Amino acid sequence: MTTQALSFRTSAEPALSVRVTAVPTEGLKENEVRLRMLAAPINPLDLLVMKGIYPVKPDNYIGDEGIPGYDGVGEITERGTAVESLQVGDRVIPKRHGLGTWRTYATFKANDLLKVDKQLDPRAAAILKTGAMPAYLLLEDMRSLKPGDWIIQNGATSVIAQMVTMFAKPKGVKVISVVRDRTNLEEVRTRLASAGADIVLSEGELKETQLLDNKRIVLALDCVWGASAEAIAAHLSPGATFINFGSLGGAENGLAFGLTQQLLFWKQIQFRNFRLSQCLGTRTDDEKNDLLTWFQGLFGHGQLRLPDLDVVAWDESAEDKLKAALARADNSKELGVRKQVIVFN
Amino acid sequence: MTTQALSFRTSAEPALSVRVTAVPTEGLKENEVRLRMLAAPINPLDLLVMKGIYPVKPDNYIGDEGIPGYDGVGEITERGTAVESLQVGDRVIPKRHGLGTWRTYATFKANDLLKVDKQLDPRAAAILKTGAMPAYLLLEDMRSLKPGDWIIQNGATSVIAQMVTMFAKPKGVKVISVVRDRTNLEEVRTRLASAGADIVLSEGELKETQLLDNKRIVLALDCVWGASAEAIAAHLSPGATFINFGSLGGAENGLAFGLTQQLLFWKQIQFRNFRLSQCLGTRTDDEKNDLLTWFQGLFGHGQLRLPDLDVVAWDESAEDKLKAALARADNSKELGVRKQVIVFN
Repeated sequence: MTTQALSFRTSAEPALSVRVTAVPTEGLKENEVRLRMLAAPINPLDLLVMKGIYPVKPDNYIGDEGIPGYDGVGEITERGTAVESLQVGDRVIPKRHGLGTWRTYATFKANDLLKVDKQLDPRAAAILKTGAMPAYLLLEDMRSLKPGDWIIQNGATSVIAQMVTMFAKPKGVKVISVVRDRTNLEEVRTRLASAGADIVLSEGELKETQLLDNKRIVLALDCVWGASAEAIAAHLSPGATFINFGSLGGAENGLAFGLTQQLLFWKQIQFRNFRLSQCLGTRTDDEKNDLLTWFQGLFGHGQLRLPDLDVVAWDESAEDKLKAALARADNSKELGVRKQVIVFN
Repeated sequence: MTTQALSFRTSAEPALSVRVTAVPTEGLKENEVRLRMLAAPINPLDLLVMKGIYPVKPDNYIGDEGIPGYDGVGEITERGTAVESLQVGDRVIPKRHGLGTWRTYATFKANDLLKVDKQLDPRAAAILKTGAMPAYLLLEDMRSLKPGDWIIQNGATSVIAQMVTMFAKPKGVKVISVVRDRTNLEEVRTRLASAGADIVLSEGELKETQLLDNKRIVLALDCVWGASAEAIAAHLSPGATFINFGSLGGAENGLAFGLTQQLLFWKQIQFRNFRLSQCLGTRTDDEKNDLLTWFQGLFGHGQLRLPDLDVVAWDESAEDKLKAALARADNSKELGVRKQVIVFN
């Protein structure tokens, strides 16, 4: 059994700083299990780690190169003599950041893993924590939502936005999904509408539409910033909440959102940020595990469906494919970049 | 006994639309009391009423001209036969908007009035509701404050800002008061510092000071907007709260606050508005009355002191003086305009 692993040196351009090498199989301690990795997402978090600007560093290294990948799902192929909670054949996801999932086999402490349903599509298992969890918490913790309320979100083709839509429906909450102007708008509109969005608009359409008049739009979810954020905020009802949780539009360079007295004082909109770690911090480990278990049941019952994803196959040309995938993931201004999930052959 | 009353026609320039006339003494119903007015503040609210842009219209008219003034204190000179809760000689303030206090004598329903301490300076009684109450609620409802926390506020010579400082001290909360650049800065600094402000800075000094480095500044109270608001927000600590409750800087014309990702996403500052009616809406009538009673006790014990005010004497030249006072109150960009309180001779 050979292990292939990706490793990186800290770099402003992660796509250039990674390589795949064959590494010796690690020994197995009594409290550890060995996994065959099945799937692992490429998240914005992983790029921050590879750029050296995320505080949680990798646990595992090949020489002085860290092994990236903080989420994913694997199947247990071997277990240490003291491990009782997990069996060979069980599927597991990491409980915490840092483990390093972008490798074909890995050895982890059993305590760092959480068992998931074997029936669950590995691509779904791989996004329970970084797709379903933030989507759920964005709707749950940022604003009390009532049936008949509307929310408006930009960056609506993202995995989180798609899953926000899935969580909104059973709450009786309606969704306005805003996407960037693009040539294949009608195709995207059909796809997002069939996945539950009540109204799908391009940013251009949003400026002129009367479809939103007199709707009670109480929550804006912004992952783009800049002009796109201003455009969705302008449609909020008095007393609504505006949440930013990302900057696909590339706002790190100081670009400002034009906050007017009309929005803050007269319409009394609240402006705040969403941070996953803060929302999780208000929940016990038991509660977090119950949430992840519940999401799996929702996938089983069809309330949650696999969102649109791109698959990156980990095969003999894994290094080239991963370099290309990281380059795509790092270019947030490019249109049509879906969440990429590494699937191990 | 003659009554002199101010009345107005709705106008964009209230100073031009008012007049003082002698009016017949009103009859007294069994559930009413007659007051001799002692003091009444000129609040921004009153100007909104006279401009016709405040939803609560005056209860009382002279012909088709409304009687303005929604706060103040008076002494009961006569009571209706069915009134038991109040005595002749008691001092009272309005419980609600609309009564019309800018007149020498007035007849009100006993139920619309709240008894206050006779020992209290009438100028203090006249600002219990519109000075002490918002100042207290700004510190109490907008953010949980702990001893050692710092707040930063602009427009710091205002009555509300002065009273915020008085309420902060016994909480162990320290106050940075920011005032507009002016020639008499040292005099103002001394005055605000002696009233409890821990640091007093002009807007110019704020740009360059290192006095605020490493302080835990968790709450900004902004009543100015625009560049002044941006300047105090820039000094907030991560996770702090920014509250806007006015626009002395004249922001109604669409001037925007430049909200950066640095503030919202990375520093996780929350931005929201304060509205007195909303904070009061979460309290029962009993709780509101207990607050007003408590404020009076604080004045009695010296924790609250009369803030800097300008007195407008209601005498034979009341009309001219009130016109001048309204013109000053309506010019928020003028420096050194203190809260004006009408004192009836």
